[in-house]
Amino acid sequence: MSPLKETWLSDYHIDGQTFESSVGFVETCYAEFDSLLLDSGLVLAPLTIAYETYGELNEDRSNAILLLHALSGDAHAAGYHNGHAKPGWWDIMVGPGRAFDTNRYFMICSNVIGGCKGSSGPGSIDPSTGKPYALRFPVVTVPDMVRAQRMLLEHLGIERLVTVAGGSMGGMQALEWVVSYPEVVASCIPIASTYRHSPMQIAFNEVGRQAIMRDPNWRGGDYYAYEHPDAGLAVARMIGHVTYLSDESMHLKFGRRLRDKEVYGYDFTLDFEVESYLKYQGEVFTRRFDANTYLYITKALDYFDLANNHGTLVEAFRDVPAEARFLVMAFSSDWLYPPYQSKEIVRALKGNGLDCTYVEIHSSFGHDAFLVESDQQTHVIRHFLEVTFHRLGVRP
Amino acid sequence: MSPLKETWLSDYHIDGQTFESSVGFVETCYAEFDSLLLDSGLVLAPLTIAYETYGELNEDRSNAILLLHALSGDAHAAGYHNGHAKPGWWDIMVGPGRAFDTNRYFMICSNVIGGCKGSSGPGSIDPSTGKPYALRFPVVTVPDMVRAQRMLLEHLGIERLVTVAGGSMGGMQALEWVVSYPEVVASCIPIASTYRHSPMQIAFNEVGRQAIMRDPNWRGGDYYAYEHPDAGLAVARMIGHVTYLSDESMHLKFGRRLRDKEVYGYDFTLDFEVESYLKYQGEVFTRRFDANTYLYITKALDYFDLANNHGTLVEAFRDVPAEARFLVMAFSSDWLYPPYQSKEIVRALKGNGLDCTYVEIHSSFGHDAFLVESDQQTHVIRHFLEVTFHRLGVRP
Repeated sequence: MSPLKETWLSDYHIDGQTFESSVGFVETCYAEFDSLLLDSGLVLAPLTIAYETYGELNEDRSNAILLLHALSGDAHAAGYHNGHAKPGWWDIMVGPGRAFDTNRYFMICSNVIGGCKGSSGPGSIDPSTGKPYALRFPVVTVPDMVRAQRMLLEHLGIERLVTVAGGSMGGMQALEWVVSYPEVVASCIPIASTYRHSPMQIAFNEVGRQAIMRDPNWRGGDYYAYEHPDAGLAVARMIGHVTYLSDESMHLKFGRRLRDKEVYGYDFTLDFEVESYLKYQGEVFTRRFDANTYLYITKALDYFDLANNHGTLVEAFRDVPAEARFLVMAFSSDWLYPPYQSKEIVRALKGNGLDCTYVEIHSSFGHDAFLVESDQQTHVIRHFLEVTFHRLGVRP
Repeated sequence: MSPLKETWLSDYHIDGQTFESSVGFVETCYAEFDSLLLDSGLVLAPLTIAYETYGELNEDRSNAILLLHALSGDAHAAGYHNGHAKPGWWDIMVGPGRAFDTNRYFMICSNVIGGCKGSSGPGSIDPSTGKPYALRFPVVTVPDMVRAQRMLLEHLGIERLVTVAGGSMGGMQALEWVVSYPEVVASCIPIASTYRHSPMQIAFNEVGRQAIMRDPNWRGGDYYAYEHPDAGLAVARMIGHVTYLSDESMHLKFGRRLRDKEVYGYDFTLDFEVESYLKYQGEVFTRRFDANTYLYITKALDYFDLANNHGTLVEAFRDVPAEARFLVMAFSSDWLYPPYQSKEIVRALKGNGLDCTYVEIHSSFGHDAFLVESDQQTHVIRHFLEVTFHRLGVRP
């Protein structure tokens, strides 16, 4: 065992997880496609989709579940990449015996198009120029992301999904899945999500985009050969982080505690722990995320409006089969995607007589709760999946 | 009458205001002082304080009220500056017959130290170098601001105040006034305020500061001879503006309406009206505000903790005389300075047996409500002032 692995195992135990429930080491795979027609009318060609799978596809290919990631997520939902101490973004929920039990289900997660973690995005090489697309990459929408995922499923030979599930933007994709491909999806779990962004959600995203685009290093998006717009991207991420937490969680986590000092510094370096946290989050993010992708994905979020092409949200769900099942979840302290937005989805589903369970989890973690509240989410999701599985008559 | 004045009168009528209730044309005055010892231990010398007054000081100098402004406010609380169409920041509340009735009260408002509207601040000339202070200006606190105001009152020959009143940071100064100078103040009206910033309030301020300080044009604060850090300041202001509104008011004001287009632009120029609003607010702000002052004032806000030197908030109010009166106001949709923060103040006042009225106004305007909800605020404040006036036995 290499020293690196030993370090990793140590970190791993500190996290209090058991080896038995992890999917262990995983690798990202890549699928190539010729082209994709986008909502904008433009064509993206060619197209790479990065994805990971966990568990085994059963013989009749009927135990597949698609996980959908949020703004800063990627295809790496669970397990560990060789040499990395940190597991995938939803590792607490995905593994043997976990909510998404890889002993029973075949899990798939792909990086959205427009992303920067292996799927085609603004940082990819434009074959017509041999240079990164930058802003020449076409603007993509949530339906475009879902169309790309559909191509991936066909590539994997999967015609039917037990469920589509995700938090935040992942929930929007899940909802888009049932509307775009109602015949493919048996059930849907949108968590801490919405059918369309409110003006406040758009506003926070726009401030983040402005922070990036006003950074002189952004250079109209063509920064790949130069210094990157890290200052703008860090500020965008800091804004995001404040909105992902809650007043209560910040009181608990930071209070007004000072950082490495007993009294105020009377200057503009760091005074409070919360400032140090934001600075750290901003800087870490610039090392792992592409500023242009931040623009593309936030724009896709803001454009998303499930009612838009259907008149009303009730109409949008009209073609969903009567046997489809929904589990809509929200968190009490999530003020970025407040529970009322999840209830709007529930009302529209009920308006179509669809089978929908709404669960509002009491949590102080704000929007971040879907990434951290493992016990309560596990309890509800496990049961929901078992019933869905049973109704479908699927044998793992 | 000059053409300029005619334009102004026209705008004036468009605003739907009546000439009778305005204080009319006003001018900012300036008072000079030798020095001020600050909380940091540093001395600011010399010191200019910009101020305005409305109404007449009565013979026994007993009808004075001090208004205290918020982050982006200034000494110009009411009336019109010659050639300007826009009245002072609290004109809806101050004038003949208005809540702060200038037929009865002598109103004073001064720009806080550290400001950029006439009082000494980072953009002022440092006499020791002949250049703007920039970050060589000492960090000031809310108690420092109040000490400077006390010097101004002495300069004006005023020993007693009927009330101190203000919203947001103005409310913090009002609270500091009764704690620092309990013998001077007969009553206090803190509105949409807090006795100390929560970590979330600190976090939003810190992101704004980071946006400014990461702008290359900021140059460590020494930008006065060069291009100013307008990009950073605009982003800071946009963040602020989102926090000043509410989910409901943004739904009402913008919804998801597009700006000058029927369909999405599929690019990163403006799509939504809310984006256009933010861009406008950001850019207007850079023309009227100094980026370094934004740093200084937000830092003063974050440092403010009325309980800090007293152990608890209840202890902080211990020397307030029993006859002092308090009117604490909050707004239902204000999530930046939520009503629970006002209730904390009320509890501590009641804990000292003090006379305190708490009014929570139902409003969709969020934190901005204190600047726009004239009817409800007027009703409550007018009555409060009349009773206070009556108890003091003051004749206008």
